Amino acid sequence: MAIQNVGFVGLGIMGEPMAQNLLTTGYTLTVWNRSPEKADALVSNGATLAGSPAEVAAASDVTISCVSDSPDVQAVALGPGGILEGASAGSVYIDCSTIAPTVAREVAGAFAGRNVEMLDAPISGGDVGARAGTLAIMVGGGHEAYTRCEPIFQAMGKTIVHVGPSGAGQVVKLCNQVAGGLNLLAMAEAITLARRAGVEPAKMLEVVGAGAASSWMLSNLGPRAVNGDFEPGFMVELMQKDLRLVAESATETQTPLPGSALVQQLFRALEARGRGRDGTQAIVDALAILAGDERGENEARS
Amino acid sequence: MAIQNVGFVGLGIMGEPMAQNLLTTGYTLTVWNRSPEKADALVSNGATLAGSPAEVAAASDVTISCVSDSPDVQAVALGPGGILEGASAGSVYIDCSTIAPTVAREVAGAFAGRNVEMLDAPISGGDVGARAGTLAIMVGGGHEAYTRCEPIFQAMGKTIVHVGPSGAGQVVKLCNQVAGGLNLLAMAEAITLARRAGVEPAKMLEVVGAGAASSWMLSNLGPRAVNGDFEPGFMVELMQKDLRLVAESATETQTPLPGSALVQQLFRALEARGRGRDGTQAIVDALAILAGDERGENEARS
Repeated sequence: MAIQNVGFVGLGIMGEPMAQNLLTTGYTLTVWNRSPEKADALVSNGATLAGSPAEVAAASDVTISCVSDSPDVQAVALGPGGILEGASAGSVYIDCSTIAPTVAREVAGAFAGRNVEMLDAPISGGDVGARAGTLAIMVGGGHEAYTRCEPIFQAMGKTIVHVGPSGAGQVVKLCNQVAGGLNLLAMAEAITLARRAGVEPAKMLEVVGAGAASSWMLSNLGPRAVNGDFEPGFMVELMQKDLRLVAESATETQTPLPGSALVQQLFRALEARGRGRDGTQAIVDALAILAGDERGENEARS
Repeated sequence: MAIQNVGFVGLGIMGEPMAQNLLTTGYTLTVWNRSPEKADALVSNGATLAGSPAEVAAASDVTISCVSDSPDVQAVALGPGGILEGASAGSVYIDCSTIAPTVAREVAGAFAGRNVEMLDAPISGGDVGARAGTLAIMVGGGHEAYTRCEPIFQAMGKTIVHVGPSGAGQVVKLCNQVAGGLNLLAMAEAITLARRAGVEPAKMLEVVGAGAASSWMLSNLGPRAVNGDFEPGFMVELMQKDLRLVAESATETQTPLPGSALVQQLFRALEARGRGRDGTQAIVDALAILAGDERGENEARS
């Protein structure tokens, strides 16, 4: 029996457009958000606003959450009026937040006790990907539940991979942030060397972006970094939250990650200057700070 | 007047196929190599083998060299029987080796004294790109000489960018190695975290390679690193030569590059185990060494 009733909890910069794509695809949607006015556009397009995450779950075959951090997931999933209270046996709970793999497994365990399967399904691709429905979605959990929910993932994303059991989706998301963070440092060190050695960084990006040293970060954020455009696609302070989860996971699994630790410290130098709400391309200024270059002392955004 | 006579000095893994592409395009080619038998295939296709780099230059409107390191360029360009001895006023000397920007400028100065323009034109794209004629070529030097030689570059490469005055091509090549080295570390840390946190690295690469953390290194060398295939596309010891040039250039220009320094030290751990002739994807084993994982103790290739 195809799933028709879907719930969505957490209508932020990612969740709102993801929910919109579910509506557009034809699902019957029930939603909840801490600030209810964030649901206005969805409600005017046919979604039903519920009074709590529990009410969302009670109305849904599949309930999705998309919030910020581990404690937020624990609250909307397991807290009073949370998803677990309303979810019926046989339904599925999908969490698209980026949280600690251990917390994802704990929450999945609590749901399993009520015969509700949980999938951890963090996402990559930014607000642009959320609106376009082209997110990369890395899914951990049982195979049967994954298969049953595949049409729902297809409505929100483009590259959807079932990467392993419960928690595996979160592990892969952390790997994604490890690789992305170091690709940002790669871009920033290349720009810094070009500048200080007297070469136009934009020309460097043009040719380096065409060869074996190319990356999404270099091609997409490199030009912004060179132009001093620090508008956030993804904010430094959110990257730091993810790198904190990386560090915790690395500690638990005894994994030395010297490069990721360096990236975290360089972003910290930006945070120390009140620049946590800049885009991650501002890492180029962390190197400028090290080099004693005035570029590093750009004013904080907020 | 279009250039017809081209010379090529240094017929190694990159130079030989580049020279071959010049022959195919229709240039009249004179060649020299330290081990003359490397010229056999070219000679049987119509190239002329000369007795010295000076003889190559005497027969050519444009003479190209493609050797390993700064001292090699100084020898074939400025040494006894070198290119400078044979080059006529008004001809152009193009060096495709990766060497120190300061040495490139010194050699260009020596050639300028005899009215021969020099372009530094290091290349990226590997032996595959050299054979296919799809190299990225980053050119430093005078604009007029660059324009005059553009058809020659087009015969050997695909993305050709004039990045600035003499030495600028070498600076950009060093930026390329900075970015490439850190992208390799990004790939390696992501694989290592996936492994130790119990997720199949191949699945991680599949989804991470589709999003904002994607890179050429992750997509092309990641699968080889995961499979323990350390056949060299580009060898650790050559990368270390380039990272030494990066460190020298960073010292001269007072540029802190903490990530590139880390990459260099991790490759050193491989060299200490006799693995300098592995491909650069072996950096994944440097992290395995740190983690006390037996994977890091793979046998040296040679």
